[in-house]
Amino acid sequence: MANTAAGTNGPRRPRWLNGDELAAWLANSAIMISLPAALDARMQRESQLTFFEYMVLSVLSEQPDHTLQMSDLAARTAASLSRLSHVVGRLEKRELLTRARIPGPGRRTNATLTEAGYETVAEAAPGHVAAVREYLIDDLEPHDLTALRRIGTAVDAAIKRGQRDRDSTVASPNET
Amino acid sequence: MANTAAGTNGPRRPRWLNGDELAAWLANSAIMISLPAALDARMQRESQLTFFEYMVLSVLSEQPDHTLQMSDLAARTAASLSRLSHVVGRLEKRELLTRARIPGPGRRTNATLTEAGYETVAEAAPGHVAAVREYLIDDLEPHDLTALRRIGTAVDAAIKRGQRDRDSTVASPNET
Repeated sequence: MANTAAGTNGPRRPRWLNGDELAAWLANSAIMISLPAALDARMQRESQLTFFEYMVLSVLSEQPDHTLQMSDLAARTAASLSRLSHVVGRLEKRELLTRARIPGPGRRTNATLTEAGYETVAEAAPGHVAAVREYLIDDLEPHDLTALRRIGTAVDAAIKRGQRDRDSTVASPNET
Repeated sequence: MANTAAGTNGPRRPRWLNGDELAAWLANSAIMISLPAALDARMQRESQLTFFEYMVLSVLSEQPDHTLQMSDLAARTAASLSRLSHVVGRLEKRELLTRARIPGPGRRTNATLTEAGYETVAEAAPGHVAAVREYLIDDLEPHDLTALRRIGTAVDAAIKRGQRDRDSTVASPNET
């Protein structure tokens, strides 16, 4: 927690959120928690895919050869490799994708969309975009769309900065 | 999918996202996916709680008697009752909360924070707020804080509207 309110003023004291910050944080939970839950429920109802499953198939469908290494797929879906492996296993059983070990050193695996997987994600896409519009995009004024883009970009940068700081300052033998 | 692009113009055609909308949606995934994942990893490292476990304990700690009915707790954490039950069972085993059936008709259950649970959430809170500041709040200009509040409020309203529309137009015997 080196990056908390510890400054030159002595012991670290929590800087609790002020009124405006708290209001923003609470409203943010609609984006961070309610939105993926709502997308998830709707995708399952309409396409028999969880939102995360849809994301996995969708990311693969955007690759020229419909193939991505598992570690890249994990990075692209912001999932841990263990969570991804679990979900990919489920999708493989449904024959929506296949896995294949990559020859050579290390335990590298590719995931490839099957034709059925491509059809599934293509069929699910219109419902997905309709949900994204209904729950998020269509209610936003242009300046809020721009703000959302700025905020998301800032969050992405802050998270990556945090990872870099940790990687460079802490040797953590317990983590991969 | 009654609430998609179906209009008076005949068959439903997907309204794909334009460039600005797509950029906002992609940036939004940092808030919706990377942010909870980063908070989760950090909370687990620092406090041995998942972000969702922290939320559950935190919501209970804000109640005057540290007690909430499971269905209310589910609504307040945007979780399904089955997901919540699973997590609450885990927290109960760690003696951070207790469950008790509410007398009377129906299967209503209260969850109550134990003293150990209260101490746990109080100890985790400074690290939590530091993470929220680092990943989200501290990098935002005041006008983006205000925009985030507006966007979150709009998302919340859109999701609730969607639920109401569904409840009123579709009799869905397969859903609870």
